[in-house]
Amino acid sequence: MKPIKNIDILRVKGEEIIEEDDIIIIEYPFTIFVDDKELITLLCSPSSLEELTIGFLHSEGFIEEYSDIKKIHIDKDNGIAYVNLKTRSHLREKLQGKRTITSGCGKGTLFYNVLDSFKSKKIEKPIDIKIEEIKSLVREFNHKSELFLNTGGVHSCALCTKFDIIIFEEDIGRHNALDKILGKALKDNLDLSDKIVLTSGRISSEMLIKVAKRGIPVIVSRSAPTSLSVELARELNITVVGFARGEKMNIYSNFPSYYL
Amino acid sequence: MKPIKNIDILRVKGEEIIEEDDIIIIEYPFTIFVDDKELITLLCSPSSLEELTIGFLHSEGFIEEYSDIKKIHIDKDNGIAYVNLKTRSHLREKLQGKRTITSGCGKGTLFYNVLDSFKSKKIEKPIDIKIEEIKSLVREFNHKSELFLNTGGVHSCALCTKFDIIIFEEDIGRHNALDKILGKALKDNLDLSDKIVLTSGRISSEMLIKVAKRGIPVIVSRSAPTSLSVELARELNITVVGFARGEKMNIYSNFPSYYL
Repeated sequence: MKPIKNIDILRVKGEEIIEEDDIIIIEYPFTIFVDDKELITLLCSPSSLEELTIGFLHSEGFIEEYSDIKKIHIDKDNGIAYVNLKTRSHLREKLQGKRTITSGCGKGTLFYNVLDSFKSKKIEKPIDIKIEEIKSLVREFNHKSELFLNTGGVHSCALCTKFDIIIFEEDIGRHNALDKILGKALKDNLDLSDKIVLTSGRISSEMLIKVAKRGIPVIVSRSAPTSLSVELARELNITVVGFARGEKMNIYSNFPSYYL
Repeated sequence: MKPIKNIDILRVKGEEIIEEDDIIIIEYPFTIFVDDKELITLLCSPSSLEELTIGFLHSEGFIEEYSDIKKIHIDKDNGIAYVNLKTRSHLREKLQGKRTITSGCGKGTLFYNVLDSFKSKKIEKPIDIKIEEIKSLVREFNHKSELFLNTGGVHSCALCTKFDIIIFEEDIGRHNALDKILGKALKDNLDLSDKIVLTSGRISSEMLIKVAKRGIPVIVSRSAPTSLSVELARELNITVVGFARGEKMNIYSNFPSYYL
């Protein structure tokens, strides 16, 4: 099974804007239960889920060998793994004592409960931004990012008005880069309801949720969005733009008529 | 401050092998304490750490506005943020009740304690692999990955002998792709001490730790390694190869003479 699905988008090429069918990467929330306790929700591609579960439990020290697993059942329709272990391992005891949180979203009972809490965060007042303005912001963003291109691997993120970049940050992690600009915006008490986020990295559901929580109406990436982020964005009236490079971009959600 | 530092590498270009100075992305473990409780260790770039702390706490619902923070102190030398909050927020109470684990490494008291536990995992018997064999594996890997290139954003990962790919997986997350191949290897009870991991994604410390835990002696990426992964790899005698593309590659650690 290919980890992709079809979706309708607006494809922009220079002056041309075409409504098209495109493919998008599936982002699949997959929750692992160990001995009836919810452990984590991974956001993954929906293949080899049993191997993923085994590998994750081993990586995190919940099992030391395959035979430590008594039973494993994958409920693919609902994105759940039910695992029973033979014994409570030493490592596992140790882990249970501490708590940390994911950079992700695996904190609700199930991922979709987390999503539900955003239903109220719909963007009511879309901002009146034109495609040419997005292109101009992307040019400025690329110019700033290029200063660091020689390292090959740092993500850039920017907060912008329709006309200018006002905060620019970089980080090895795209989530950290976004948290840095959002942290600065919070400290400076900026109104985010008319701002735009630019990122060099993929727009995953985690990125989209960070933006949605702040009521930011537009997120633009040089890279691809995932299926889950587009679904969420469509619910919340957030405009998601991907593959924004030079004169091209794809608009995945919330196509206001004034774009056109 | 640029999020990079200098490092000596072996640069391979066709038949040529040159020892060179290169730059590498810094991966900086940064631990956030909230009201004297350790919350998480982020792996980030060492800039705008106060903004990152504020943004992270806001993203995760620990604060609702900036004024919820009574005090924030960044100890940059030790990579620690000490935060005191004004009140225990409702959201925070809720979060404290649950536990999930990061896909990352923030489980020790401090990140370096986690690293310490790997010191015993040194590779004792390096495998006798030649540069030409790595190039050949990379070609096979690229060929397999290309089948899915049209989606732009799925990571590939493979487990190999010196001569062939034996497990190949893809996932939206590079950690998941690696856990999938390691899960399959565990289930199939494979000896990993003479195997090689190929990945399309960056080699972060988290990726390196997953490999080190299994005693795998070589990891090869199309992309960059981070500073922390190279430091760890040098301690553990793991060979890290980055930017492996066509006839080129950079060797960052554990340069056995038979490579040359």
